[in-house]
Amino acid sequence: MANEQKESKNEQKNAKKELKDLTNRDDNYSQWYNDLVVKAGLAEYSAVRGCMVIRPYGYAIWENMHAALDSMFKATGHENAYFPLFIPKSFFSKEASHVEGFAKECAVVTHYRLMNDPDGKGVVVDPDARLEEELIVRPTSETIIWNTYKGWIQSYRDLPILCNQWANVVRWEMRTRLFLRTAEFLWQEGHTAHETRAEAVEETEKMIGVYRDFAENFMGVPVIVGRKTANERFAGAEDTYTIEALMQDGKALQSGTSHFLGQNFARAFDVQFTNRENQLDYVWASSWGVSTRLIGALIMAHSDNNGLVLPPRLAPLHVVLVPIYKGDDEYRAAVDRLHELARELRARGLRVKIDDRDNVRSGFKFAEYELKGVPVRLALGPRDMAAGTIELARRDTLTKEIVPQEGLAERVAALMDEIQNSIFERARAYRDEHITRVDTWDEFVRVLDEKGGFIAAHWDGTTETEVAIKEATKATIRCIPLDAPAEDLQPGVCVMTGRPMNYESATQNS
Amino acid sequence: MANEQKESKNEQKNAKKELKDLTNRDDNYSQWYNDLVVKAGLAEYSAVRGCMVIRPYGYAIWENMHAALDSMFKATGHENAYFPLFIPKSFFSKEASHVEGFAKECAVVTHYRLMNDPDGKGVVVDPDARLEEELIVRPTSETIIWNTYKGWIQSYRDLPILCNQWANVVRWEMRTRLFLRTAEFLWQEGHTAHETRAEAVEETEKMIGVYRDFAENFMGVPVIVGRKTANERFAGAEDTYTIEALMQDGKALQSGTSHFLGQNFARAFDVQFTNRENQLDYVWASSWGVSTRLIGALIMAHSDNNGLVLPPRLAPLHVVLVPIYKGDDEYRAAVDRLHELARELRARGLRVKIDDRDNVRSGFKFAEYELKGVPVRLALGPRDMAAGTIELARRDTLTKEIVPQEGLAERVAALMDEIQNSIFERARAYRDEHITRVDTWDEFVRVLDEKGGFIAAHWDGTTETEVAIKEATKATIRCIPLDAPAEDLQPGVCVMTGRPMNYESATQNS
Repeated sequence: MANEQKESKNEQKNAKKELKDLTNRDDNYSQWYNDLVVKAGLAEYSAVRGCMVIRPYGYAIWENMHAALDSMFKATGHENAYFPLFIPKSFFSKEASHVEGFAKECAVVTHYRLMNDPDGKGVVVDPDARLEEELIVRPTSETIIWNTYKGWIQSYRDLPILCNQWANVVRWEMRTRLFLRTAEFLWQEGHTAHETRAEAVEETEKMIGVYRDFAENFMGVPVIVGRKTANERFAGAEDTYTIEALMQDGKALQSGTSHFLGQNFARAFDVQFTNRENQLDYVWASSWGVSTRLIGALIMAHSDNNGLVLPPRLAPLHVVLVPIYKGDDEYRAAVDRLHELARELRARGLRVKIDDRDNVRSGFKFAEYELKGVPVRLALGPRDMAAGTIELARRDTLTKEIVPQEGLAERVAALMDEIQNSIFERARAYRDEHITRVDTWDEFVRVLDEKGGFIAAHWDGTTETEVAIKEATKATIRCIPLDAPAEDLQPGVCVMTGRPMNYESATQNS
Repeated sequence: MANEQKESKNEQKNAKKELKDLTNRDDNYSQWYNDLVVKAGLAEYSAVRGCMVIRPYGYAIWENMHAALDSMFKATGHENAYFPLFIPKSFFSKEASHVEGFAKECAVVTHYRLMNDPDGKGVVVDPDARLEEELIVRPTSETIIWNTYKGWIQSYRDLPILCNQWANVVRWEMRTRLFLRTAEFLWQEGHTAHETRAEAVEETEKMIGVYRDFAENFMGVPVIVGRKTANERFAGAEDTYTIEALMQDGKALQSGTSHFLGQNFARAFDVQFTNRENQLDYVWASSWGVSTRLIGALIMAHSDNNGLVLPPRLAPLHVVLVPIYKGDDEYRAAVDRLHELARELRARGLRVKIDDRDNVRSGFKFAEYELKGVPVRLALGPRDMAAGTIELARRDTLTKEIVPQEGLAERVAALMDEIQNSIFERARAYRDEHITRVDTWDEFVRVLDEKGGFIAAHWDGTTETEVAIKEATKATIRCIPLDAPAEDLQPGVCVMTGRPMNYESATQNS
């Protein structure tokens, strides 16, 4: 057994090299991320520029995210619907600021037919099949949805409308990264319509709260909830709320946004309703979305040089069981016992796989499931068979222990909660260590340069200063936190200009 | 109570008129269908030609279909993945027959940027942002998927690949009908890769079996499973299996297809693998799909002049509860009791809604839920309160009875199975009455003209005759049934040409 274990360790080392060839996270974070996404089988680039293929293991994470978010949306009274992929070009011109933000880098459909190449070489666009008005592949759906809502809303009795859509969208990004920024991505977009400003604001805040809950309790990613500056707002919004997460390279990642749209889209598409005072008024709106980018956030927040670390609530697999054996008899005995244990684990609602491949060494398997971030690995060898024990390895801590087979399912089920919590706490500790309060420009520059992470600082509230800070340091104002500690709420002076800053007015500027 | 009921009946009559204004099904089946889809709040046309908006009630049916099918796919070993929306134009030229079938009426993306109109009027396509190669919005994904599979498959150990995708697709249809034929629709497409012909054929047949199971046991729609003629095959397939349903206008609706693709796509995209004999071979393939068209089939198979009739397994709501009252006290008492009953119903897994609107008459509510096809309606009035009873109305039979409140949840839960079964049996009886065995051309023409439905007839197996029949009568060969009764399997003569027909060879023709 000692020998076997030693052999297994060497194997595992070789297997890791062979399987992963992962760039070291500290050497090149960006390359490490890309390697990991591809080698763990989550996604890859396709033949179409900037578009990704989401492989089954990556898509299974998205399915788990989808299921959790969808039930949270439904629990807060929302229904799903589906609106067209295409948007008439003219719709983008109807909301003045929206067009600037969204109608630029996008996929434009100009024709509706191909024909055989007269030269006999494949197919060409049929010049006679030109659309009268070009169609834009939706980069977001406010315009087509508000054009539709016009037909649904006459009176306050038709409100609120609480719709969500699960869909693909396209934004023609020049520099793409798997999950984080791709030309096509999957997302959900909520679009709600309300009688009053107060109700629409309440909805906007409620949904950023749902995203926070999801990020922290499912993804294990602590977030700062805040409002974007006027400069960083969604094009067409009066106010944008955001959840900001911190990645392990000390950089922030915007992970979800919720927008209070005022009456902008109702005005643009002439959506009026008869209110309780029997007068015509424009409808108030919110929209909110998260996307497959969350998978990128999940990977970057927790994973390490051995591969993915996945929180159990979103992991496609909770437990993998591996037989350790020499010869057919030991193999058969171990596999049979693993099937019994797997049944018990599944009965507790755990997602379980037995890897009984006999053409792959166990060390290779160990490395593979570490790469794939399966939270718990169970290995059963002949000594365990005799002793009624099993080896249990945790992915998040990379620790191993020998535990009794008796009560295994209960232990593993409880461990899932422990791992979920532990992953979150580790990310929170890292994040909290990387929030630095700063009062002077020198400190600001030094912290950015030496430590990274979030900086809590006062700002004079002008777009001019915001742009100057970005030009000088590349730092962006992530948000004005909603739940900032009391000391941050004290009036202070702008870290760059020294001008006084008033917390209350910071997001009122436009 | 007698008065109240009478009043309620008149109300209901008026409400029906007001709410529905449904075209009579027997007067104009096509208009009845369209009215029903729109008035029941399932879907509507959008501002984009041929594209629909699927409204929440319609989308909820799709979500139920999605959930049922997805779990059937997973139970048969499939995983979900996601492939790009766009396909490079050149990919369509790689499989000779596929290009004819799919690369014609499609949305073509030629540009990736808009710019402000130099005249200051909205936005125009930026002529400098022309794509080097046009992109096609996927009408189906065989080409992009097989181009991807090339990177996933080296050896037989990488097989089978059993992937499914839930996605939107676009086919530029000239004449569209909500759900049945729209430019954009939602579907799933399975794409599998196998070592051997036999395994790929087995998969193709397995999946048409899954569709049959779904159509009959979830949709309550009996189907004939068969193989398409060479002429009607999927472009690029060696064999196409279909499920054919009969609608209430006596017309067939192709409701799902499963294709054996041979090695056609593997050859087109050069996907070879090392087989167990250590030799290179091309991979064998299947693909299979069903779409939001199934919602159209569901509506057309069961609904009537009062509105939708939905099978419980797919109905967004199982039960609606309505209070009958005069004055606030009766209202409050009835609604309170309905909440208690609703809790019991929900505890049995039923999807339940209480309609406690006090500004809408109960007759109006009754008509509305008939229109929406809610399987069971419960109405609770003051006499019921006193007697411990409740009025239970079935949507499928339009029958009502007074039943005890005690044991209500159990009764309603059992009724769901009964209704599911009853809807299926009624559709099956209709379908079976509308299969006519025919041996002569005169009979063929007469049955088509006078009765409609399916005709079981011999055919000489040539495309020439198939086309001639269609030209003469508009009738198409729906399929060569897999499980035809023994008498149909006897050799016979073609109903049009009188030439002998051999059942075995009917689908071998190409």
